[in-house]
Amino acid sequence: MQSLCDMIRDRAVAYNLWYDAESDQSVAWKNERQKMRKGQQTRQDIIRKAAPIFNQHGYEGAALSDLMKATGLEKGGIYRHFESKQQLAAEAFDYAWELAVDRRFAGTPEIPNTVDRLKQLVRNFEDRRSGLVPGGCPLLNTAIDSDDGNPQLREKARRALSSWLESLQSIIEEGQERGEIRRDIDSSELATLIISTLEGSLMLSRLQRKEDACALACDHLEEHLETSVRANKSRSRVKK
Amino acid sequence: MQSLCDMIRDRAVAYNLWYDAESDQSVAWKNERQKMRKGQQTRQDIIRKAAPIFNQHGYEGAALSDLMKATGLEKGGIYRHFESKQQLAAEAFDYAWELAVDRRFAGTPEIPNTVDRLKQLVRNFEDRRSGLVPGGCPLLNTAIDSDDGNPQLREKARRALSSWLESLQSIIEEGQERGEIRRDIDSSELATLIISTLEGSLMLSRLQRKEDACALACDHLEEHLETSVRANKSRSRVKK
Repeated sequence: MQSLCDMIRDRAVAYNLWYDAESDQSVAWKNERQKMRKGQQTRQDIIRKAAPIFNQHGYEGAALSDLMKATGLEKGGIYRHFESKQQLAAEAFDYAWELAVDRRFAGTPEIPNTVDRLKQLVRNFEDRRSGLVPGGCPLLNTAIDSDDGNPQLREKARRALSSWLESLQSIIEEGQERGEIRRDIDSSELATLIISTLEGSLMLSRLQRKEDACALACDHLEEHLETSVRANKSRSRVKK
Repeated sequence: MQSLCDMIRDRAVAYNLWYDAESDQSVAWKNERQKMRKGQQTRQDIIRKAAPIFNQHGYEGAALSDLMKATGLEKGGIYRHFESKQQLAAEAFDYAWELAVDRRFAGTPEIPNTVDRLKQLVRNFEDRRSGLVPGGCPLLNTAIDSDDGNPQLREKARRALSSWLESLQSIIEEGQERGEIRRDIDSSELATLIISTLEGSLMLSRLQRKEDACALACDHLEEHLETSVRANKSRSRVKK
């Protein structure tokens, strides 16, 4: 029969063994998690630093040497985190587009009147450009860049456009239900017109290196929203 | 003293020598001219065949292998006629842009009323696209492609835009002088708005692979020209 002392010693040994095992596992898990977290951080860092290169120079123009210089990594260091240049470009687009959407919709959900909300969206396009990925609108750039090739990137741009159109359409339809927007307006057509005018003016502004075209497009759309989109009832309510 | 026979013989020899010399020179000139003409033809042929590649894939995306395949020439055969890829791209842009301008202004000089002329220019943007260099508007493509690099091509696009803007402005100012267009319209602003809306809608149409955005932009601009640009006097005259 075991003495109490032996039992206590055995328990202590067993406990320590168990504790050590758990501790080892914990450390291994922690290390693994830290490694994953660091890997994720490096991945995000690569995307953030690659995004301006793709947005400024396009897919073909984004040279590996530029990506290496921007990230401070060797080719292997970059492609450990991405299957291909295609995948990196796609994630760089998502990152740049998310920032653009964030700025363009900033401060709009809290505007109760839908016409005023659309006017703010138009105004944001011109005003809220700080903090964006340099190189202009990622949608415009990627749409033109991938137009006759690169179907994966083209699909990214197409989905981004669809989602932007749907967001505007949903505001317009909300406005129609609430009697703020004329019922005879086609929500899809108005959304298309707004985005066409803004994006085209951005091309001109960037080519001329002056804001005039963008400012004009915003003024024109604001006037259009006020005179041809806002329902009379809503206009008179605002005037009060 | 030379006999008559000798004189005649000498003359004949001299004449033949002179004649042969002239004939040789003539042939050399002709050959030279033919060679130049052939060289010019080959040069134009390269530009014509390279233009769709640059317009569809951009400067960086236009691979030498594609240019060789399209022209049926080796690298040396292409670059015998052009100093650099840069020069070929610039001349390919000029070629593509000239075709675009040709289509966009087609049938407009003969329209006497300036508002109707502007409406036709807008309509041509959508309707007259056959025979253009494939790949969409060379101005939009080159502006986006050269935005953050390639200053020579950027300058080409900037000048093309300026010249298009000036042509529209000049029609608007002619209309103002003739009382057809409202005096309070800023010709530069209206020209900018027209081009922004058209070019932006083309980006959407090409990305969506359907004409809707372009058609909408044309309808919107035509309505704007009719309701906010045409002077009352001119409108009432047209209504008669």
